[in-house]
Amino acid sequence: MPQEKERNRRVILASRPTGAPTEANFRFETQPVPKPGDGEILLRTVYLSLDPYMRGRMSDAPSYVAPFAVDEVLGGGTVAIVERSNHADYRQGDWVVSQSGWQDYALSDGRGLFKLQGPVLKHPSWALGLLGMTGFTAYMGLLDIGDPQPGETVVVAAATGAVGSVVGQIAKLKGCRVVGIAGGEEKCRYAEEKLGFDRCLDHRQDDLAAQLKQHCPDGIDVYFESVGGKVFNAVLPLMNTKGRIPVCGLIADYNSSGELPQGGDRLPLFQNAILRKRLRVQGFIINQDYGDRFEEFFRQMSQLIRLEINDRE
Amino acid sequence: MPQEKERNRRVILASRPTGAPTEANFRFETQPVPKPGDGEILLRTVYLSLDPYMRGRMSDAPSYVAPFAVDEVLGGGTVAIVERSNHADYRQGDWVVSQSGWQDYALSDGRGLFKLQGPVLKHPSWALGLLGMTGFTAYMGLLDIGDPQPGETVVVAAATGAVGSVVGQIAKLKGCRVVGIAGGEEKCRYAEEKLGFDRCLDHRQDDLAAQLKQHCPDGIDVYFESVGGKVFNAVLPLMNTKGRIPVCGLIADYNSSGELPQGGDRLPLFQNAILRKRLRVQGFIINQDYGDRFEEFFRQMSQLIRLEINDRE
Repeated sequence: MPQEKERNRRVILASRPTGAPTEANFRFETQPVPKPGDGEILLRTVYLSLDPYMRGRMSDAPSYVAPFAVDEVLGGGTVAIVERSNHADYRQGDWVVSQSGWQDYALSDGRGLFKLQGPVLKHPSWALGLLGMTGFTAYMGLLDIGDPQPGETVVVAAATGAVGSVVGQIAKLKGCRVVGIAGGEEKCRYAEEKLGFDRCLDHRQDDLAAQLKQHCPDGIDVYFESVGGKVFNAVLPLMNTKGRIPVCGLIADYNSSGELPQGGDRLPLFQNAILRKRLRVQGFIINQDYGDRFEEFFRQMSQLIRLEINDRE
Repeated sequence: MPQEKERNRRVILASRPTGAPTEANFRFETQPVPKPGDGEILLRTVYLSLDPYMRGRMSDAPSYVAPFAVDEVLGGGTVAIVERSNHADYRQGDWVVSQSGWQDYALSDGRGLFKLQGPVLKHPSWALGLLGMTGFTAYMGLLDIGDPQPGETVVVAAATGAVGSVVGQIAKLKGCRVVGIAGGEEKCRYAEEKLGFDRCLDHRQDDLAAQLKQHCPDGIDVYFESVGGKVFNAVLPLMNTKGRIPVCGLIADYNSSGELPQGGDRLPLFQNAILRKRLRVQGFIINQDYGDRFEEFFRQMSQLIRLEINDRE
């Protein structure tokens, strides 16, 4: 279904899903393409980011980001092109990162836009990945909280995900030993062969803890947490003194009922590890905590990508 | 029993205690007072610090500090006076902070000593409290990890202890609302009337969580943790977004068996709070983490004490 010049197709959140979303939770509608007023620009969506956090925002349970509104267009980061401009800072043909959401066209007064310039224009979709929110999350969590040093061991949960894959690659560039954890042999092979991780372990194997210990002979200095659950259990005993744990997600718990899991209480175990190993454990939400450093990230990350590409050529 | 000029009385760790220590774990002995060699000084102990961490060091279970050796004199921070000196940097009559331990006299080659100078000489024992290890713990944990801002709410566990009492007073000087938690009405009165806390709550009351909520109407920005257990349980739900939790101890768990407590597993609750509230939780051990900043602390803290005394005059 190609985009049309006169019609704006939009996907609306019709109702909040319970469990896995179904088609009934969404409504498809079309509108005339809106016209920009004074100081406004018309954006045409070219790329739309689809991310795990969106499921959370479809619910209205308390979460770390505001829920999507029912009967409104679904939100989401996009790479868009300026079709018409009544704004001094934008011209037709400019590429921008915007929050246009699930629709062909959107108006903007320029606030919150990020104009793409320079080499990234060869790969504008990267502005939603490596050079976008997920890359930004990886970069800031790893470097600002994790502070990895050459020779240290970095363990990355969800190693082949949009965030984890970037965490591991940056850690390699910083001279770290990188051990990923992912679900299944295929993902693990990808992490080792394509992403260049030193090792990637399958969390579906029963002996994850033993394998992790074997492949982290010097312990773990940084654990990039996005999963929780049994991966965390395997990691904690291996954390080194002064270790750092940036926490950007806890997928293993996203569907929990809210009741305390039965079995022993592991909280004191964690607290004791924090004290005795002098760990730093820190949660972060990329835009709230680091929103003002996006340009710094974009510049530095562009540099890392170019360096890496040059190395391989 | 006054000190003598010729005899050095020493308390030796005879055996490691199980549970509460008894007299049988200690041995009292005397030696001739040792003579300083070239480059050495003879120290006479004037004040000896007695601290909770010492119990831990009497055991050889893995801990965050090395255990005391059996058949050696018990360790501990002291304020001592130089009796004889063959060291260019020290003269008879100088006051120093040392680690002479539980004995009247000790030799030193000057390493690890801290010479007392200036106004603190009026109160040399302060070098073991407010201006010593416990004050240093309070100062660095609160200011470096807790980073309290004017108007924020700081909650202090073990509020009348050597560390907690200083944490709360510094937080007051920084313009924070300070709520202490202590065991018993008398301690709480002391914290409010003498230490100047805004409020101090008795953790022996059944409704601690409800009281804490009532007296922290704007939530908690910094929780200075030295206790764990039920105090932590009451604090966690009240932590604000971007809250900080410096962890310098976990007294509630010090005597635990090592088995997981029964009942629900609160670990995911804590992990979720870290993520959703973007908390920073960080353990520290004062000398290992901040040993190189002792002089800075001593200078700044001397300043705070003087300021405070002036304010009250």
